[in-house]
Amino acid sequence: MTNKQLIRTLMIETPSIPGSLGKVATIIGLAGGDIGEIETIKVGPNYTIRNITVQVDHEGQIEELESSLFRLGGGIRLHAISDEVLHAHEGGKIQMKSKVALQSLADLRRVYTPGVANVCRIIEQEPDKAKIYTSIGNSVAIVTDGTAILGLGDIGPVAGMPVMEGKAVLFDQLAGINGIPILLDTKDPEEIIRTVKHISLGFSGILLEDIGSPHCFEIEERLKKELQIPVMHDDQHGTAVVTLAAAISACKSAGIDLKKAKVGQIGLGAAGLAISRMLMAYGVANVFGIDKCQDAKARLENYGGRSFDSIEALMGNCDIIIATTGVPELIKQQWVRPGQVILALSNPKPEIEPELALQAGAAYAADGRSVNNVLGFPGIFRGVLNAQARDITHSMLVAAAEAIAACTKPGDLVPHPLDLHVHKMVTEAVERVASLHEEIVVTK
Amino acid sequence: MTNKQLIRTLMIETPSIPGSLGKVATIIGLAGGDIGEIETIKVGPNYTIRNITVQVDHEGQIEELESSLFRLGGGIRLHAISDEVLHAHEGGKIQMKSKVALQSLADLRRVYTPGVANVCRIIEQEPDKAKIYTSIGNSVAIVTDGTAILGLGDIGPVAGMPVMEGKAVLFDQLAGINGIPILLDTKDPEEIIRTVKHISLGFSGILLEDIGSPHCFEIEERLKKELQIPVMHDDQHGTAVVTLAAAISACKSAGIDLKKAKVGQIGLGAAGLAISRMLMAYGVANVFGIDKCQDAKARLENYGGRSFDSIEALMGNCDIIIATTGVPELIKQQWVRPGQVILALSNPKPEIEPELALQAGAAYAADGRSVNNVLGFPGIFRGVLNAQARDITHSMLVAAAEAIAACTKPGDLVPHPLDLHVHKMVTEAVERVASLHEEIVVTK
Repeated sequence: MTNKQLIRTLMIETPSIPGSLGKVATIIGLAGGDIGEIETIKVGPNYTIRNITVQVDHEGQIEELESSLFRLGGGIRLHAISDEVLHAHEGGKIQMKSKVALQSLADLRRVYTPGVANVCRIIEQEPDKAKIYTSIGNSVAIVTDGTAILGLGDIGPVAGMPVMEGKAVLFDQLAGINGIPILLDTKDPEEIIRTVKHISLGFSGILLEDIGSPHCFEIEERLKKELQIPVMHDDQHGTAVVTLAAAISACKSAGIDLKKAKVGQIGLGAAGLAISRMLMAYGVANVFGIDKCQDAKARLENYGGRSFDSIEALMGNCDIIIATTGVPELIKQQWVRPGQVILALSNPKPEIEPELALQAGAAYAADGRSVNNVLGFPGIFRGVLNAQARDITHSMLVAAAEAIAACTKPGDLVPHPLDLHVHKMVTEAVERVASLHEEIVVTK
Repeated sequence: MTNKQLIRTLMIETPSIPGSLGKVATIIGLAGGDIGEIETIKVGPNYTIRNITVQVDHEGQIEELESSLFRLGGGIRLHAISDEVLHAHEGGKIQMKSKVALQSLADLRRVYTPGVANVCRIIEQEPDKAKIYTSIGNSVAIVTDGTAILGLGDIGPVAGMPVMEGKAVLFDQLAGINGIPILLDTKDPEEIIRTVKHISLGFSGILLEDIGSPHCFEIEERLKKELQIPVMHDDQHGTAVVTLAAAISACKSAGIDLKKAKVGQIGLGAAGLAISRMLMAYGVANVFGIDKCQDAKARLENYGGRSFDSIEALMGNCDIIIATTGVPELIKQQWVRPGQVILALSNPKPEIEPELALQAGAAYAADGRSVNNVLGFPGIFRGVLNAQARDITHSMLVAAAEAIAACTKPGDLVPHPLDLHVHKMVTEAVERVASLHEEIVVTK
């Protein structure tokens, strides 16, 4: 038993020389660390890599340990120090697994040569059979150029990979979809479009992820037009679906009719503009917006919204305010109109704290912590894959938002993101609308 | 109990109307089919898809059933009829799975937002950490343009997908590698090279697969030069590794010293040329070859081999003959020199049946049925991934061939392809050579 509070996992390589592990254990003990689990990660031709869990009292001991191990030399190498969160990401969070076990030559002949040749021939003759005899019909590419990873900005696609793997985890666990991360080494829209098109045959959907604005608009628009499979930029439309669901629930709580209300969107970046479009698609007649950037306002007007030049004026004019600016404390308490619904969605700090908005007379106020796009994309893609749809339309997305809102408990903004029932409802809603659009491809 | 011999699985969609399944069952019974397993594949908003296993006496009953079901109408649709082999491929053979279970919001916060942000930041600061905290270090792209799928030729990448999935199954089951099929919609070498480079950041290796000759040469050469990760065209070098292993074993059986022998390669396509190069890399001083195509002969000479103009003359000159022409019965019995080793590797029919070669005085003769490249690529890639190697060199490939030969029982040509011990030996041999070439990347 140890009372030490700080737990770290050290990934340590030792040469295959007797006593190496002993040296490491001694150093850990001298630094005041208690050794817990020791897990062998890899046995190489002349070295072993292990994960050694160590408990210490404070961070300083870990730093001391780091330099002691470095001084040890002799082929002993500290590869990484992981806390609990980092440990969960070690080795990556996803793996490509076989659905069949290879136990005999008969298995090998069935799933590989020579048996596979007949499957190939059948697909050559009837290409639609690929939906039945390959994984293509259940696979979605998760594509990023790494230019807008979370709120971290342009950190590159490799540093963004943990997010892409997170999406793949959610696809698997919530919708049974194969999510395949594709990291692009180019930010050039033309190159991105060309590359995605060249690899698109292996997928039945493209989830664009964390691609910066404004090039995300052109990329999505062109790919939607030029590909015969559904394409969706999650940071735009996934976010917009969950926001619309939240707005529906908030208006219900506040007793406001969303479709007849005046809605003001503060911030017209990728998410804000998509939210505005989604509100219009839902049937909101009056959508207003504001942004520092003139191009952004022009885009809103192009889609049928109207722009304002001052946040104060916008807020004075609207029944519902949705803010996605990334700027904490942007909204002043005195701008809040009594009876207004305010969704200040920027993370980690909202444009106005919900308590302050309520103090100022808002009928309903919430921040973005629970407005998680996990609620949207898994069911949306499950629905279009089920329907073998060739596109994701606004009516499908509105149906998804309505399904999420219908699953929300009274007073809540959105449902629990891991509630499988919600994802099933979203799937069915999207599939139902998609099936109205197009005949299911009959392969026989 | 049924005595009927023919088993087929019918994938049937029925509308959600009471009695639909009953109609289907009646039709099957009327056609003389016995119903076995019924598995529900998908429940849609207004339909259900099931796999119904049916046993019949002969193929004609299946055809009758097919037209009866077609005539039924009313939304009842027969999507596919699968035999045992096809059934093993239904839904595809691979799936992208999460390694972590999402059971609580705490799990979600750890593997997705907000926890994931810190992992991204660490990789941004130290890019090598991606090897530890993402799946990139364990992922290999399986890339094809569909131009030379098995012996079927240019049937396109989608029809080739069952082979790519088969490779991914083998990667998973034999080497614990994530194999990600990438289907390219272009045959243009420049476009292929450009596309693979654009998506290469997500992988630590590229397996080129079933890409036709001669454009496969340029694609592989350029990608090897321009990428910092290992690239291998399996149809060339994977095949060559297993063939060299077979040649080593055959010479051992025949009491011939391979390195001092004269080897004749009949057929200098992608595989034949790679075999010739592999023999030279192994240390065979005298490699001769023949092909109908002058360019192919020039390529051999460029690598240091010598070409012949007649098979008869080549065979008269050589101690060992390896044939990879795809032409059955190409080699006449009278050309066989007593004491010769003959590996006639074309599938499904060899250039000369081993019995005929032995009758004609060959010391050892075999066809290509057991020379399966399954023995090579999984361990080769496992070895270079373990060593974090940036390239696959001929010395690594020779080490792989020697490891396979060392695992072969006396008298056999190659070991059992599913023997995990062989793959472990190949891995270690490749890793050992790779570690001599380059320092293992130390990430901390």
